[in-house]
Amino acid sequence: MLQNPELHYLDNAATTIVAPEVADVINKAMREHWANPSSLYAPGARSEEALNAARAAVARTLGCKSRELYFTSCGSESNNMALLGAALTRRFGKGIVVSGFEHPSVQKPLERLAAMGYDVTVVDPGPDGTLDIDRMLDHVDKNTILVACMMVNNEVGTRNDVERLAAEVKRRNSRTIVHVDAVQAWMRVPIKLANIDTLAVSGHKIHAPKGIGALYLSDSLYQAFQAPYLGGEQEREKRPGTENLPYALGLAAAATRLNKTMKSRDTAVRALNLRLREGLKAFPEVVINSPDNAVPEVLNFSENCIKSETMLAHLAQQQVYVSSASACGRGQPSHTLAAMGRDPLAIDTAIRVSFCADNTPEDVDAFLNAFEDGMKHLQRIKK
Amino acid sequence: MLQNPELHYLDNAATTIVAPEVADVINKAMREHWANPSSLYAPGARSEEALNAARAAVARTLGCKSRELYFTSCGSESNNMALLGAALTRRFGKGIVVSGFEHPSVQKPLERLAAMGYDVTVVDPGPDGTLDIDRMLDHVDKNTILVACMMVNNEVGTRNDVERLAAEVKRRNSRTIVHVDAVQAWMRVPIKLANIDTLAVSGHKIHAPKGIGALYLSDSLYQAFQAPYLGGEQEREKRPGTENLPYALGLAAAATRLNKTMKSRDTAVRALNLRLREGLKAFPEVVINSPDNAVPEVLNFSENCIKSETMLAHLAQQQVYVSSASACGRGQPSHTLAAMGRDPLAIDTAIRVSFCADNTPEDVDAFLNAFEDGMKHLQRIKK
Repeated sequence: MLQNPELHYLDNAATTIVAPEVADVINKAMREHWANPSSLYAPGARSEEALNAARAAVARTLGCKSRELYFTSCGSESNNMALLGAALTRRFGKGIVVSGFEHPSVQKPLERLAAMGYDVTVVDPGPDGTLDIDRMLDHVDKNTILVACMMVNNEVGTRNDVERLAAEVKRRNSRTIVHVDAVQAWMRVPIKLANIDTLAVSGHKIHAPKGIGALYLSDSLYQAFQAPYLGGEQEREKRPGTENLPYALGLAAAATRLNKTMKSRDTAVRALNLRLREGLKAFPEVVINSPDNAVPEVLNFSENCIKSETMLAHLAQQQVYVSSASACGRGQPSHTLAAMGRDPLAIDTAIRVSFCADNTPEDVDAFLNAFEDGMKHLQRIKK
Repeated sequence: MLQNPELHYLDNAATTIVAPEVADVINKAMREHWANPSSLYAPGARSEEALNAARAAVARTLGCKSRELYFTSCGSESNNMALLGAALTRRFGKGIVVSGFEHPSVQKPLERLAAMGYDVTVVDPGPDGTLDIDRMLDHVDKNTILVACMMVNNEVGTRNDVERLAAEVKRRNSRTIVHVDAVQAWMRVPIKLANIDTLAVSGHKIHAPKGIGALYLSDSLYQAFQAPYLGGEQEREKRPGTENLPYALGLAAAATRLNKTMKSRDTAVRALNLRLREGLKAFPEVVINSPDNAVPEVLNFSENCIKSETMLAHLAQQQVYVSSASACGRGQPSHTLAAMGRDPLAIDTAIRVSFCADNTPEDVDAFLNAFEDGMKHLQRIKK
């Protein structure tokens, strides 16, 4: 890493290191902005003003109106709020269409809705890790209340064409709510909100702390939208709880900082991804799981030789930190690779490398060296 | 205030000022604990260990097992999670009993449940601000799935006998879930969890930042409990989202700090409360709204002369900051005083003074001086 050459943190899809300048903003805000933004006296008004500035700054990076941006405590909350809110809001039918490689905070709420009687159609990605949008559209009809699809998959990095999906869903049923989990996409790919009703983002994937997220909620849906959690008048009465102003300011600082460097970061990360792909060519057993359209931040492959957990523990001894799947699953086998129809060996030996712009070519080389060593010396799975 | 003699912040029921030592803990954690607590490598394990330590520390102050303590993003989330979770969990009936002066994050979710067909009985407090627990118990029967009552009212400070309520509810129906909103009680009065299934607390009332709360969920309810929001395996699969470790550590620091000084703070705050009561005796129009059993931290009264907003703006010019009702209502008339059956004049001229142990006798005197000046010179309501 730029900050620490001994550390090779290549698990940025799990979480990112808080940027020091973001931590500085939060530290200052905790001490200065002590008043409740809902309080009417001057210190409260100053807190509210700072909150509005943070909201405007984050909204700018998404291209929405400030008032369409709702602060939450994380991407998982944003997803739950949007999906369960959609079910409370749209009562004309029971149809829901969702991709088969969503984050658990999308997958599990929809599984509950299915158990409650909703007709949930799950469209799996193909073996190459891409999602056929047309297969999702085939299931959209007059009874479809909700279509949910992530913009960038968290395990293999697939860039789904949610823009076309959203446009085509609306052509088929203008009342269908389109939700996009953009947690892994924000600040990695440009986001266009046309035809999208709700979109979830998270701070801790963009060098803000864990514990802050946001939901874009289109103003065209505001009046109708029934939020799952209720309480005070914060966040236009859609998300209760006294506002976490320090982290909101931190999220704004993190987003503003990265928004300026979208292109240069993309170039830098593409070079790291390419360096890793080149290095992996030395291992004939390695099969890349990330599709061609994946974002450069994520490279998922199966080494087909050594159990992921064994390899990961070996890499960690060299301060090379990667993962086998989503961190939320705590080492469980990848449900994305399973949805792609990969064989058990591929799933059991999967490795996800995920970059940020603070990674260096030396991090890639450290990975490749430790990986080579592991491939030579670790116990192989008996076939 | 001890920290700043010019500042007379007497609105500690709205929010408290983050203690510098708590901000220090958070600042350090943001920079050091960068790894996701769910990640399996050593830095992740260190984050998890720190999270567990924070959980144990908070649990100790509540007298529960560590695993019964679930971090949330605020008291409002804790309340929603418990109440909506109770409705998902207990399907044997539709009866719900709740006090009439709950926080909006209890009141509004239950209003929605009522609209969905639940039989919600609301028991208002009496004109003296106390709640007749027996009147709540009268409505508890075999169909009652949930009884909710706050431990300390946020507007007038009533200390409700939730301990007896919980015990008597369980005698009548052992399957009824008892929820207690203890946001205003925690670190002000001792909390006993016997017979209570779920209990909500918040960080920003105890000098931690806004954006962290917790829910006690009894282990006896763990298996059955259906959490409203779903996702990853964090918080024993009851509350999804990558954990906000810095704030969890901050909450633990804030709770540990105050837990040592329960008695001395109570004595100090009682003296401030008494000093204010004595001072208010000079104003014959003033009627105290807080009941005799109120916690000393809150003193609510109606001056019956000048609109609250006018008086509050006048006080604020002297850096004396108080409120007219809950901050969440943004200056709306007090729903607690309305539930108590107070007349419109009393409601329109209500003032809530709320102390913390950092307040000084000088703060009370500053309030009384500015208040006296306001009573003399501000425009009176025509009767």
